[in-house]
Amino acid sequence: MSAHSSYADWIAVDWGTSNLRAWAMREDVPVAEASSGKGMSSLKQSEFEPALLELIEPWLGAGTNMIVACGMVGSRQGWCEAPYAAVPTRPMSPILARPDVRDPRLSVHIVPGLKQVNPPDVMRGEETQIAGFLRKEPSFDGILCLPGTHTKWAQISAGEVVSFRTFMTGETFGLLAKSSVLRHSIGTGWDADAFEAAVSETIARPEAIASKLFALRADDLVNGASQDAARARLSGLLIGMELAAARAYWLGQRIILIGDNRLCAHYDSALSSQGAATELADATAITLAGLASARDQILESAT
Amino acid sequence: MSAHSSYADWIAVDWGTSNLRAWAMREDVPVAEASSGKGMSSLKQSEFEPALLELIEPWLGAGTNMIVACGMVGSRQGWCEAPYAAVPTRPMSPILARPDVRDPRLSVHIVPGLKQVNPPDVMRGEETQIAGFLRKEPSFDGILCLPGTHTKWAQISAGEVVSFRTFMTGETFGLLAKSSVLRHSIGTGWDADAFEAAVSETIARPEAIASKLFALRADDLVNGASQDAARARLSGLLIGMELAAARAYWLGQRIILIGDNRLCAHYDSALSSQGAATELADATAITLAGLASARDQILESAT
Repeated sequence: MSAHSSYADWIAVDWGTSNLRAWAMREDVPVAEASSGKGMSSLKQSEFEPALLELIEPWLGAGTNMIVACGMVGSRQGWCEAPYAAVPTRPMSPILARPDVRDPRLSVHIVPGLKQVNPPDVMRGEETQIAGFLRKEPSFDGILCLPGTHTKWAQISAGEVVSFRTFMTGETFGLLAKSSVLRHSIGTGWDADAFEAAVSETIARPEAIASKLFALRADDLVNGASQDAARARLSGLLIGMELAAARAYWLGQRIILIGDNRLCAHYDSALSSQGAATELADATAITLAGLASARDQILESAT
Repeated sequence: MSAHSSYADWIAVDWGTSNLRAWAMREDVPVAEASSGKGMSSLKQSEFEPALLELIEPWLGAGTNMIVACGMVGSRQGWCEAPYAAVPTRPMSPILARPDVRDPRLSVHIVPGLKQVNPPDVMRGEETQIAGFLRKEPSFDGILCLPGTHTKWAQISAGEVVSFRTFMTGETFGLLAKSSVLRHSIGTGWDADAFEAAVSETIARPEAIASKLFALRADDLVNGASQDAARARLSGLLIGMELAAARAYWLGQRIILIGDNRLCAHYDSALSSQGAATELADATAITLAGLASARDQILESAT
């Protein structure tokens, strides 16, 4: 590919619900980066190609440019549906989707997500991070935890995703903190002790959580409780519920955290309080490594 | 009071966050009713009196008209703060708040809410329903459950509210069903079996609930699951969590449900599936009886 490109060998794209990020790549190394807020959910079918061109036009060579994209861009509501591969499976399915494009310089490939029939679950985007992690550590046996709006826990063994579960912890936190009656009592700060206490009491007594949410508001009204502690406590209650349900994924396992650094620090603190050690992997580097794996597959299948 | 009123002895008002309802009363009997969407949260300080007059003007006699109001109108953000009474206490505190008014025909009294210091909790409006229920059944010993956006469970004994807890189940259901990713998979119908199954499995294994929310979305994507069943199941998971945390309030107790009929039917179904029987009380009649209790106190303290 590099023969007819003046700048990049290929272009890596992470196209989620809310954001679009692109990198000009030379082999596995990013040499330029661009991003926009044109996520999948804000685009009509005809708007995907222009949104992409807007970012990557400066990097395009005169010939055919390989673009490899992951994320919600491959969903039914996205640019071109990339059907899910069912677990257990290697994380990077060889069947990539190819949207129709007008610009002859573009050769676009979209990575499929993963699905699990029972218990039902799906992912789109995280499979690329899993593939990226395995590219760097092919013999890994353990758990990848990808904290985010929808946190994913994936069990990895022998190069395959064996099973995974999704938790709406981040989205639920956002809704309760910003859109429920709790918003009047949730500050912008943090209190690490309040967070850890909430995690521990929820894991010890998960059945009690429903009585503890409104108490965050009432403790402010009745006792003038700290709103920063309330924020940390709400997060601790919800992450505690997640850990209570995900116990099989973290108990006695090797756990790698991949995601936003601040959020990963909260998960590390919560897991440490339960005696589980974690390691941190760089999310962007892992995403690019996963897209590079997809590119390798495309190059191999073309030969 | 009736001497100088051509129409009503007094006026009962239920003034919540989102709605305002008023009744012209002859003793304990409503003879006219009016309502508007001018709830507490949509009004500035100066707008409460006009919003009230707009509804009750036709009922006003030439002299002084007694108005008795309950609900969020008595909160700090309302018309005039009515400080909470602390449990254990009789539900109807004798210290009613008196907002300043311009119209000399109005004599407005606002019922205080209840607070609990530990575990922290508050109510505004439900104390009036509790007082109304006790007016009809003074020797009641058991549990009043008031389902709603914020469901209240109150333990009643010897005419007092002994303790109570609030659950954000209704608000959480609304946020998850309408504003989260689940909205794409939540229908408008109902499935009673799916509801009861979700209640039972959550009470049996409350620690697993966090893994079951996103599964509602995934079960639609992967298995084409029914969206009506998903709606009932989401409700069942959340009400199940509430019942798991409120167990001390319903196990082996006499339980009266007070609230919206459809919602009370769901609570009845959930509690029945756990072997707990319930009785239903008419919410509007109970509210008016509670406001009549407050009026009695005002009349007594004036003599």
